[in-house]
Amino acid sequence: MELVVDPLILRQRLSEIRRQGKSIGFVPTMGFLHEGHLSLIRAAKEQNDFVVVSIFVNPLQFGQNEDYEDYPRDLENDSRLAEAAGCDLIFSPEAQVFYPPGYATFVEVEGSISEGLCGAARPGHFRGVTTVLAKLFNLVSPDNTYFGQKDAQQCLVVKKMLQDLNYAINLHIMPTVREADGVAMSSRNKYLNPGQRAVAPVLYQSLQQAEALIRAGERDAAALKAAMRSRISAVPETVVDYIEIVDTQMLRPLERLTGSCLLALAVRLGGTRLIDNIIVNVEGQ
Amino acid sequence: MELVVDPLILRQRLSEIRRQGKSIGFVPTMGFLHEGHLSLIRAAKEQNDFVVVSIFVNPLQFGQNEDYEDYPRDLENDSRLAEAAGCDLIFSPEAQVFYPPGYATFVEVEGSISEGLCGAARPGHFRGVTTVLAKLFNLVSPDNTYFGQKDAQQCLVVKKMLQDLNYAINLHIMPTVREADGVAMSSRNKYLNPGQRAVAPVLYQSLQQAEALIRAGERDAAALKAAMRSRISAVPETVVDYIEIVDTQMLRPLERLTGSCLLALAVRLGGTRLIDNIIVNVEGQ
Repeated sequence: MELVVDPLILRQRLSEIRRQGKSIGFVPTMGFLHEGHLSLIRAAKEQNDFVVVSIFVNPLQFGQNEDYEDYPRDLENDSRLAEAAGCDLIFSPEAQVFYPPGYATFVEVEGSISEGLCGAARPGHFRGVTTVLAKLFNLVSPDNTYFGQKDAQQCLVVKKMLQDLNYAINLHIMPTVREADGVAMSSRNKYLNPGQRAVAPVLYQSLQQAEALIRAGERDAAALKAAMRSRISAVPETVVDYIEIVDTQMLRPLERLTGSCLLALAVRLGGTRLIDNIIVNVEGQ
Repeated sequence: MELVVDPLILRQRLSEIRRQGKSIGFVPTMGFLHEGHLSLIRAAKEQNDFVVVSIFVNPLQFGQNEDYEDYPRDLENDSRLAEAAGCDLIFSPEAQVFYPPGYATFVEVEGSISEGLCGAARPGHFRGVTTVLAKLFNLVSPDNTYFGQKDAQQCLVVKKMLQDLNYAINLHIMPTVREADGVAMSSRNKYLNPGQRAVAPVLYQSLQQAEALIRAGERDAAALKAAMRSRISAVPETVVDYIEIVDTQMLRPLERLTGSCLLALAVRLGGTRLIDNIIVNVEGQ
């Protein structure tokens, strides 16, 4: 497996690969890889001849008071894990090379897809995501790219960007990978102290409870959100950032559930912001 | 020569071309081709195996009170001219296909490069330009692309976008092509009535006069701008939109001329807005 930090060398290397007629799968990450990332790399390896993983903690997608400086980094361990999962090349650029002084170009998906949910809580976040992805997609020119359903809104923002900007890249959204107790894998889980980690399953449990209520016939979004909120708020140290039920196309809030519904939430546990979601398909009635 | 309107067919056709190992040159235009465009197509033909010309009057780069509806269109004549100049394929998408309902993704170069000069007079204009170019660049994936120096600010905005977003595309900026009397070729010249056309050379004459003053030692931007303004304002029906002298990197206004200086102006002649510019290299002193 190769490690490349220079965008020009990456480009050279990948044009060789492409000249050999090989397909390229691409998994963009911020590193500190966990089983969720590895499932994306394995899927990429199954479906492509050559797998590129980027590891770049993108300053542009962090707010001023967020955890850019503290975000966990471990390139050595990441390299081992990525290689074992089938990665052929890791691209890990320096922030000052990727955004040199005078950097001025931004890519933005506007409207309900990027403005609600995490977009409301983290202004500029998705603009940072789509900008860095435009750079990475232009450098790597992959045939296929892989994202995790855990970041549901990110998946939709990326899908919209690829479609609107006519990128010839197939987007694959892979299922959320969970710990044995249901907690969605996330690099930020390492911030949790043992007590916080012990109660973290409440996010997924509240989503599962809502799904059970829907299966039992509940269609009123307010009632479902209240049930989730009450379950989560019963746990000490939790602060609900949002609990929302939206359609899976435009992410517009629903009053009554119908069609494909995204139940999404963000909860702070101590200082750590965790997100989770499920999609429930509701028969029309 | 082929005419393609469907982005998916364009992509298919160009991947065949690329599989044959051919290089692709790309000239994006809004059609109503004149000798300026044709010089770009000829340069593309000289330097590439296959030349794509896009003809698309991009609604996104017109302001609400601008001439989107009236902008001249003549695809049949354009096809003849483009083919004779060496074009292999014309891509001319429908506006409602390129920007379907719900379109939401925009590319923007921020800061002095896009905010001054035409950016100040035409808010949103360059955002429209960079967005449509991102779409076209992603569809065509050219090796080389060609722009005219007549749109000096556009050239710099595109250069910045290509650099910032890591596009692997070589930008070629070709000299402004002029009529015998010095008027810069522009599709908008057709709006001029005979009287307006007769006085239109004053734009270039004022730039040449300024260059002569610089050669004679003048370094004060205010004096040079005043000279240009006074020459242009002496002509009936002219309204100066801007007359500026800026550095050619960041397009920041200069007080004293030094290094590579862009003298740029926009003038309304009756209802028609014309632009022109020259670059003058001033020895340090």
